[in-house]
Amino acid sequence: MAQVTLKEIADILGISVTTVSKALKDYKDVSEETKKKVRELAKELDYQPNAMALSLRNQESRTIGLIIPEIAHHFFANIINGIILEAEKHGYLVIILQSNESFDLETKQIDLLLNKRVDGILMSLSNETDSLDAIRKIISNGTPLVLFDKISKMVNCSKVIIDDQKAAYEATEHLIKSGCKKIAHFRGPLNPQGSIDRFLGYKRALEDHKITYDPSLVYICNRISSQEGFDYAQQVLKDHPDVDGIFCITDLVAAGAMSYFNKNGIFVPDQISIIGFSNWPISSLLTPSLSTVDQPGTRMGKEALGILVEEINAKKKKEPIEYHLIQLPTKLIARNSSKKS
Amino acid sequence: MAQVTLKEIADILGISVTTVSKALKDYKDVSEETKKKVRELAKELDYQPNAMALSLRNQESRTIGLIIPEIAHHFFANIINGIILEAEKHGYLVIILQSNESFDLETKQIDLLLNKRVDGILMSLSNETDSLDAIRKIISNGTPLVLFDKISKMVNCSKVIIDDQKAAYEATEHLIKSGCKKIAHFRGPLNPQGSIDRFLGYKRALEDHKITYDPSLVYICNRISSQEGFDYAQQVLKDHPDVDGIFCITDLVAAGAMSYFNKNGIFVPDQISIIGFSNWPISSLLTPSLSTVDQPGTRMGKEALGILVEEINAKKKKEPIEYHLIQLPTKLIARNSSKKS
Repeated sequence: MAQVTLKEIADILGISVTTVSKALKDYKDVSEETKKKVRELAKELDYQPNAMALSLRNQESRTIGLIIPEIAHHFFANIINGIILEAEKHGYLVIILQSNESFDLETKQIDLLLNKRVDGILMSLSNETDSLDAIRKIISNGTPLVLFDKISKMVNCSKVIIDDQKAAYEATEHLIKSGCKKIAHFRGPLNPQGSIDRFLGYKRALEDHKITYDPSLVYICNRISSQEGFDYAQQVLKDHPDVDGIFCITDLVAAGAMSYFNKNGIFVPDQISIIGFSNWPISSLLTPSLSTVDQPGTRMGKEALGILVEEINAKKKKEPIEYHLIQLPTKLIARNSSKKS
Repeated sequence: MAQVTLKEIADILGISVTTVSKALKDYKDVSEETKKKVRELAKELDYQPNAMALSLRNQESRTIGLIIPEIAHHFFANIINGIILEAEKHGYLVIILQSNESFDLETKQIDLLLNKRVDGILMSLSNETDSLDAIRKIISNGTPLVLFDKISKMVNCSKVIIDDQKAAYEATEHLIKSGCKKIAHFRGPLNPQGSIDRFLGYKRALEDHKITYDPSLVYICNRISSQEGFDYAQQVLKDHPDVDGIFCITDLVAAGAMSYFNKNGIFVPDQISIIGFSNWPISSLLTPSLSTVDQPGTRMGKEALGILVEEINAKKKKEPIEYHLIQLPTKLIARNSSKKS
């Protein structure tokens, strides 16, 4: 059975398509009797109004676009979860695109979504993004935009982030307070703001506690992989045999480092403490269980979607839009890969 | 700057909207000179054709709908990844909805997608799904449908799955060949086909190797959580002190069980072997590293999308649609939580 059209309803009842259409929209110039007949038949045949035609009339697609660097990533998956849960509440559908950390793809995807006339766009920037022209096009196009997690401070729009610098400060301070004196940092790539902020938090915590910052204790994980954690764990012991703590950019890198130490008979945390970042579901099940920083992914998605819907509504009512900068709190989770502080 | 319309282009050039529209579509009754002017101005003003109007004309939304039980789940995140990568290649956008394992929500989401007139639907069923009426509505509506991973054999459409029974058989057989004589199974809920098939594979492997099947060695994980793995690890030792192997429905449950044994000085695999299912990214980093079965999530997503696009194209050309049943191969990954077989 194909989808029922207005014309079929009209033909069955022997009235015009216009009358059927007006009846379904409850126009005054159609009799109550006709309206009743049309509604009953529409229900019986399971008539569904053509969403595209409706959207065209309302200039509204009830669809929002989401561009995210990587879906198969625990934190982003939680954010998507939050976005979709909240979109459902507000009656929006979500089109998801994955930039794969590629700036070119991201630019193309922005065009696709504008072309599709989505009502608003949510974005977390790729690590490669170095020009903001495409993103500014969203704004000049009048489409509401909210950036989250991986943002650029140079774009004038609402943003939802965590305070990476503060979170990294707390993680590093936790190691210091538990007795670590020589703390390495397995950091992320050089470009992304989050990676920079975590590094700055690490550095500031050292300085505030009168520990001299030593750049040779900082190792760059360009792919943010467990293999890099594994390899740098071996490297840092060669470079600095007296290292006694490591703050890792994510739990995955930390798990890789811990796996190297476990395999080589180096005791965590007795000889070396490790703290990660992100609180992956399996982190509590590592041996020893991994200390980390919990990031509220689901909440971040909900907040970002909530603000976007506010802005879409304001635009509809032609009200001025006020940009928000939301910083969500993180939580230090001290487990057994670090000593009690 | 709002989006440029055909009317604005027409006004600037002092020609009719119809002429502009025809020029952009390269109609023969518009002069080359006018076409050139229109194209140049459209490019300069960054004119984007209204996708909804285009769709309405073509009866095509270039959008497909995806309903999945849970996004923040490693295996599903990989599937979504595969679907989106492949959709990108074919020029389709993907609307993602999450059923949250709720049958009611799933039914509502099917209506939403049909109402949105997506070109096709991809679905993995919720654990709760016990009536197939809503799913059959997709088919009777003439919308191409492909089920993947969590399917129902009762629906007549294309399906992409893994051979859960065979994969579970191999996992159990691996434990038997490595010397285990009393093997427990921490299984999934009673309803889903995948959970049933893994149980059947376990049972068949025992029988084929002349080990008597003992129902008291099977424990049901309704939430498929690490906590259940942890709790049942304790329970199984009480119920069967001589148990020497466990096959778990997923790595998460296995990781929970291993965490209990690690904490209580029970050596894995010397005293008890463990094998999981799914090959989570952190599973290789557990101590000991977890033996498991690798499921090709990304490939499953790509295959499902590919078949759906084939069916959408066949429908457009009014060609008959042939349903496929694709069973993707899994791979046993023997690590250190089980003995060498």
